[in-house]
Amino acid sequence: MSKQEKIDWLVDRFFDDSLAAKAVLEQYWNDDRLLQELHDDFIENTLSNYYLPYAVAPNFLINGRDYTIPMVIEESSVVAAASMVAKFWYSRGGFHTRVISTEKTGQIHFLYRGDADGLRYYFEKMKPELLRATGPYTRNMRKRGGGILGMELVDKTADMPHYYQIHVRFDTRDSMGANFINTCLEAIAERFVRPDIEIIMSILSNYVPGCTVRAEVECPVEELYKDDAVKQAEKFVKAVEIARVSVPRAVTHNKGIMNGVDAVVIATGNDFRAVEAGVHAFAARDGVYRGLSRAEIEGGMFRFWMEIPLAVGTVGGLTKLHPLAKLSLDLLGHPTAEELMQVIAAAGLAQNFAAIRALTTSGIQKGHMKLHLNNIIRQLDVTAEEKEFLIKYFENRTVSHNEVIKKFYELRKKI
Amino acid sequence: MSKQEKIDWLVDRFFDDSLAAKAVLEQYWNDDRLLQELHDDFIENTLSNYYLPYAVAPNFLINGRDYTIPMVIEESSVVAAASMVAKFWYSRGGFHTRVISTEKTGQIHFLYRGDADGLRYYFEKMKPELLRATGPYTRNMRKRGGGILGMELVDKTADMPHYYQIHVRFDTRDSMGANFINTCLEAIAERFVRPDIEIIMSILSNYVPGCTVRAEVECPVEELYKDDAVKQAEKFVKAVEIARVSVPRAVTHNKGIMNGVDAVVIATGNDFRAVEAGVHAFAARDGVYRGLSRAEIEGGMFRFWMEIPLAVGTVGGLTKLHPLAKLSLDLLGHPTAEELMQVIAAAGLAQNFAAIRALTTSGIQKGHMKLHLNNIIRQLDVTAEEKEFLIKYFENRTVSHNEVIKKFYELRKKI
Repeated sequence: MSKQEKIDWLVDRFFDDSLAAKAVLEQYWNDDRLLQELHDDFIENTLSNYYLPYAVAPNFLINGRDYTIPMVIEESSVVAAASMVAKFWYSRGGFHTRVISTEKTGQIHFLYRGDADGLRYYFEKMKPELLRATGPYTRNMRKRGGGILGMELVDKTADMPHYYQIHVRFDTRDSMGANFINTCLEAIAERFVRPDIEIIMSILSNYVPGCTVRAEVECPVEELYKDDAVKQAEKFVKAVEIARVSVPRAVTHNKGIMNGVDAVVIATGNDFRAVEAGVHAFAARDGVYRGLSRAEIEGGMFRFWMEIPLAVGTVGGLTKLHPLAKLSLDLLGHPTAEELMQVIAAAGLAQNFAAIRALTTSGIQKGHMKLHLNNIIRQLDVTAEEKEFLIKYFENRTVSHNEVIKKFYELRKKI
Repeated sequence: MSKQEKIDWLVDRFFDDSLAAKAVLEQYWNDDRLLQELHDDFIENTLSNYYLPYAVAPNFLINGRDYTIPMVIEESSVVAAASMVAKFWYSRGGFHTRVISTEKTGQIHFLYRGDADGLRYYFEKMKPELLRATGPYTRNMRKRGGGILGMELVDKTADMPHYYQIHVRFDTRDSMGANFINTCLEAIAERFVRPDIEIIMSILSNYVPGCTVRAEVECPVEELYKDDAVKQAEKFVKAVEIARVSVPRAVTHNKGIMNGVDAVVIATGNDFRAVEAGVHAFAARDGVYRGLSRAEIEGGMFRFWMEIPLAVGTVGGLTKLHPLAKLSLDLLGHPTAEELMQVIAAAGLAQNFAAIRALTTSGIQKGHMKLHLNNIIRQLDVTAEEKEFLIKYFENRTVSHNEVIKKFYELRKKI
């Protein structure tokens, strides 16, 4: 079925007002036919373009360099918070970031019922040949300085009878590397297999504790708040510590970090599900799910930092294919994957800073309710005067959908 | 600055070819000025619309009812896999889903240095008053059958000196409920505080192990595969078990589930960072990060299921505000939040089924490399004949960006 036929099928079958539904889908089509075809072809059964706001957060000073960061996110206040925090730290030395490691891994999972020593011998003997089997696939990556870093046999029989892995370590340079890693693993598995070895699957891992980046801010405590700086800073540190020891808080603490991280991940054409899975599993790596950031006050200095795993690319995938992803990378000055990791980490830390500062001072509802009110007003067909009246009226009153609508109709009757 | 001024500032400052950059941003604007303003106002500093493909996966039979599921995702093969798996299970009874629980929580985190019994006494005495303080905010929610389910004092001093929580449990009906929960918590905290109690923060939790849904499929083993059904089914079960005992595999296993989950979460205007954080922390709840799905063969039946936490809404937030989110909910038949939880869980389980089936049979690279080739070709300005030639040429050859481009130029010279 063509796109048009799919839409006709859909609206006839599932919508009371099929013409209206069709109009909603079509109002998002791009006039440029070729551009629309490009976007249609990214996935299958595409019917329209789902708009997510593309925004920028200026004034990020990262390792002394000035960035304006592209962010794609539907949640209000995230970009505003990033911009505000970036400006705040701009005059306090900015963000200090560094890449700690860039190793990714994949595993060949298999069952083997024979003697473990025999298997180890076979693996060691085969190793050069297994590497050779990947030769055609790694050639280009090796030219760019990446490739396979090593492989180990892992005995997992304590966790599951007869279960072993070949654990392969990779450097994928500026690409996220999923296709590269999977192709290598399948080539290795094909060469490794023999009648007494049952390959279950060969697949990259999105768990990347060996591919991490650190971001940090610091300033004298008295520069952190206008009033009561020491007490407020101590409260901030307590809030960060609470996220280390309370799972319910840790989850939302990290969710806030990911508001910043994902917004840049999406804007640069990377895969946010991969990043999310890697980050949250990393947060649980010591057996308890914990907040990812840390804070301390020492010798009069306030320090706030985090280390997170991030497997992202600046070549391959959608990075050059989606015109706005490409624009994002241009905006960031054509970064390497390592540079992009640092920008993303800064954006994540900035979100976390904004959230904790708001939570430990005025609470977050005041700002949120103002945005909530604006959302409700936007759904009503109000004049500029009515809008102004409603905003003033609810300044010190509880915002609820019903109350706003009630007040709006009262207002109309009066007019 | 106006949107236009922001764009001018940005392209002048960060782009060599500022006109070209401006054109890329503007080519995504909608001709309908009011519609564009609506999307601009979702967040701050919006410059353009980031397109994510809006697609549908038909033929989902869930509890005997026929669904076509809206999905928003940039990754190729996810919608194709969902559609294929939906059709596969359609003739095998479809997906069986049910909501297990719908409780959400929030916490007031505070420090108290006095006697613990005194605090408990104060909390119990204050309880009715704390509930009363939320009265104006919970009135509408109570009318809809929701509200505050209860609250408990939690002694966390073993984890951190002087640290306690008021843990509040909520039923937010068809709304995700973030604003509602945060408003209630802040009202409780305001009433609870006294000079010897230092409130650190009051905030909802995205950790929702009390808000879970289960999805399952089952069929006789011999209906699962055309050939070698028992052996293949056993291999499938092993692959699922491996994700229970190997963290690197568990992370990617769950990432695959989230490909399906997030696609529906975004298409219906919900917040995927909240869902991601809740799901992955749940995966680590017993101290080891594990795969979320389970599989078994018993009495000749194959069974595959999962239980995941999902806090989503079908009212509030962007659900009615984003025209395509509203269309998604119309397409799903105006579901309650509980119905939406079940649809999302089915989509997640379908993705996981597709991934494991591919991994344990032919591997995933064959399909992926075909898509990879298509992506590379799309970036070249090829004719239909050249495209056909390249696809045929790489049918049994290794696809790499360089090789495809090399072959393409060879081809051009010949012509």
